[in-house]
Amino acid sequence: MNYKLVFRLLGRLLMMEAALMAPSLAVSLIVREGDTLAFVYTILITAACGALLGFLLKPKRDDLSAKDGMAVAGLSWVILSFFGALPAVFSGAIPHIVDAYFEAVSGFTTTGSTILTEIEHLPRGILFWRSFTHWIGGMGVLVFTLAVLPRLSGRTSHLARAESPGPTFSKLLPKMSDTAKMLYALYFVLSLCETACLLLAGMNLYDALIHTFGTAGTGGFSNYNASVGAFQSPLIEWIIAVFMMLFGVNFAVYFHIYRKEKEPILQSEELWAYLGMVLAATLAVTFSILPGQPGFFDALRTAYFQVTSIASTTGFTTANFDLWPLLARAVLLLLMCVGASAGSTAGGVKMSRVLLMGKSAYRDLEHTLQPRKVAVVRFEGKPVQEATLSQVGVYLFIWFCLLAGGTLLLSIRETDLVTALTATLTTLSNVGPGLSHVGPVENFAFFSYPAKLLLSFLMLAGRLEIYPVLLLFSANVWKKS
Amino acid sequence: MNYKLVFRLLGRLLMMEAALMAPSLAVSLIVREGDTLAFVYTILITAACGALLGFLLKPKRDDLSAKDGMAVAGLSWVILSFFGALPAVFSGAIPHIVDAYFEAVSGFTTTGSTILTEIEHLPRGILFWRSFTHWIGGMGVLVFTLAVLPRLSGRTSHLARAESPGPTFSKLLPKMSDTAKMLYALYFVLSLCETACLLLAGMNLYDALIHTFGTAGTGGFSNYNASVGAFQSPLIEWIIAVFMMLFGVNFAVYFHIYRKEKEPILQSEELWAYLGMVLAATLAVTFSILPGQPGFFDALRTAYFQVTSIASTTGFTTANFDLWPLLARAVLLLLMCVGASAGSTAGGVKMSRVLLMGKSAYRDLEHTLQPRKVAVVRFEGKPVQEATLSQVGVYLFIWFCLLAGGTLLLSIRETDLVTALTATLTTLSNVGPGLSHVGPVENFAFFSYPAKLLLSFLMLAGRLEIYPVLLLFSANVWKKS
Repeated sequence: MNYKLVFRLLGRLLMMEAALMAPSLAVSLIVREGDTLAFVYTILITAACGALLGFLLKPKRDDLSAKDGMAVAGLSWVILSFFGALPAVFSGAIPHIVDAYFEAVSGFTTTGSTILTEIEHLPRGILFWRSFTHWIGGMGVLVFTLAVLPRLSGRTSHLARAESPGPTFSKLLPKMSDTAKMLYALYFVLSLCETACLLLAGMNLYDALIHTFGTAGTGGFSNYNASVGAFQSPLIEWIIAVFMMLFGVNFAVYFHIYRKEKEPILQSEELWAYLGMVLAATLAVTFSILPGQPGFFDALRTAYFQVTSIASTTGFTTANFDLWPLLARAVLLLLMCVGASAGSTAGGVKMSRVLLMGKSAYRDLEHTLQPRKVAVVRFEGKPVQEATLSQVGVYLFIWFCLLAGGTLLLSIRETDLVTALTATLTTLSNVGPGLSHVGPVENFAFFSYPAKLLLSFLMLAGRLEIYPVLLLFSANVWKKS
Repeated sequence: MNYKLVFRLLGRLLMMEAALMAPSLAVSLIVREGDTLAFVYTILITAACGALLGFLLKPKRDDLSAKDGMAVAGLSWVILSFFGALPAVFSGAIPHIVDAYFEAVSGFTTTGSTILTEIEHLPRGILFWRSFTHWIGGMGVLVFTLAVLPRLSGRTSHLARAESPGPTFSKLLPKMSDTAKMLYALYFVLSLCETACLLLAGMNLYDALIHTFGTAGTGGFSNYNASVGAFQSPLIEWIIAVFMMLFGVNFAVYFHIYRKEKEPILQSEELWAYLGMVLAATLAVTFSILPGQPGFFDALRTAYFQVTSIASTTGFTTANFDLWPLLARAVLLLLMCVGASAGSTAGGVKMSRVLLMGKSAYRDLEHTLQPRKVAVVRFEGKPVQEATLSQVGVYLFIWFCLLAGGTLLLSIRETDLVTALTATLTTLSNVGPGLSHVGPVENFAFFSYPAKLLLSFLMLAGRLEIYPVLLLFSANVWKKS
């Protein structure tokens, strides 16, 4: 790794993070709940560290190798989360650094799992920052950064490769930085729409922003213990549910809508499969929970909210689905595995990967019958390279290994299989809540510190499509180049 | 499909099955527990149906296409299980045909899951047949058949492809039928060794045969409610545990031992990985259960027995592991997924597939760092084709879909996630017991009839490496050719 280049980049990201803490500092100044100094200290420390690395390091070569790109992607999330955890520690909101780190990782990775047992007592500046990390994390700190910082070299696509959530990320515009700006603009506009809708539905500005951040990043941190259920408002539930679904769509679709291009939208197999999955899951859950609900439309709303929340890997809740019939719970667990679309802010293995493997499976079954016929897998109208299919299979295998390994390690201290399994699944897929002791009305506070670090690792691995995080454990990456 | 050819083959297999019922008839004649007529009727019906199909059908063409091979493999297990279920129905031991079918499928697929709540009251002829189906199923009715029936055409390797348990099945001898004979001889000799050891350890001949059948086929049916635990004999436990481990080894290894070839054994990555997995799992389980055991060596024996039983997908038990600490249970669940070696009688996805995917994963991670380097995955000293790697990935994906789908369907009636998940897993991997309501001291009687048929389907799919069973649902296969 080109240490000087990588750490200069990380330094610049830290300076950016310090700047991004300004709105939270402003909130803390307005509400005056004792967390102002925590932000001041954190901003000073973060900016100082950032400036030291960002200005003093003078790399000899300016081109980012694939290895360096991976290292930046992996390290940035680890390091930004560390500095992002400091306000909670300094303010005393979350005294232990491991707890605060878990919470910050959960924020930046847009997971939404929390170790907080009492959210509503915390200073509002801290809660604002906690949710704001979702919004920053949502589109990826680095995609965001790419749109602002000038391109460093011709090879920045390595960064995007590590960052882009999915196997295929169609190039919308010829220049990487233009694409990033476009995605960022879409993200901003969609967020603005949601905030406006929530304000119109009667939410105050603070709550509206918090829940927009949670939705846009598909994160799920709320400032209420009862999550979105606290509002007791069907209208608000519908608004957030629809936006959760929308943020699980590949952003390329919105780009095509903006450009009034019908063809690519109709051809988007991932879009229709995702919408089909949401519809099927909503129906299955509705009928499963119907007997315990006041009426069909209440059941439908509650089912749709939970389904879009889990499918988009957001994690807001309006019901304690841990008490639901098993079919409804099993459907939600399956949604947790799949996640939503590539090119969205969602986690999970992504619908496009599932579709690619499904098509491969169909092809291989056909091939068994007609061994001489050569069939090519096509996705969204284009033939898919065999190497891509093989890589997707390998990706799913590693994902399953992380799921199994995480469950096994949590089993050392845990006593309940469902807790160990769903805690691993929900963090690896960046969802938020699981079942049993990590169910919607529970939290992650009871885990030991090693377990919290393990879960943080899983959140990072899930968010960064595994590879950049695993590669941080490779000696090869750390070799000076 | 070439109907006449396929059904003639099935007819011959049925005649064979009728003949294979003779030892059970003999047992029923000796013990005289009222099940003799059931066997007489079944043998007559089976032989008659077999003769009708086997002698009257005159196919125009004699060559077996890939499609026909798949159809024979899939259909034979479905149909042989049906006729194999008749003695239990006729004797009244298992009155309902679906229950009896489940039990027969569980026998032929060497799963060992049972719907019987009281095993010890049943006639001994019925129990003998029940266990004998494990022994028949173990090496695959068709591998067995290949060694006895003359080769039908030059393309019988299609049959072996559908049948051979794993992605790579090295050709030990140039002729398919010689290989089959050799495998069969090894199977017979190993079984004989186990029976002899069990007799020397003080078991009576009947029990020794029953438990040999269960071990050799990695099935797990016992004639005692308490399974092998009923003998209360550490010596017997050690003997069966060691043989369970041995029957999970690729039979090619024994062939090489017989030929005194050291090199292929030392090079067998699958063998060493399998043994390493058994060792690691035994240690983990031993230390996990130690606090509840009388002493270290008791813990070690109990752990080793359960680990070899689950890893080899046999399913004999000497302890109610459902009450064990979660770590021990989680280790057993992971073993259920992996299974043992390809080319053995075990189920699961097989160690060789896991190794191949692990190597692919390592290669892909390396590739991310050095995109220009072309690396080939090598397995047991030979380079692996990319197409094979891709197929293995697809296989694991379909396996995971069956696991998820089975769990989801069982969730419609079930209320307990662990039961639904482990019932699916244990049948799909042909193990036998699961956790919670399908734990080692429980049984599958409480499932609804549709659920029992679903679980039978999973057992068949798991045993036949999925494809031949899935293809039975393809209209293409049923098209007349």
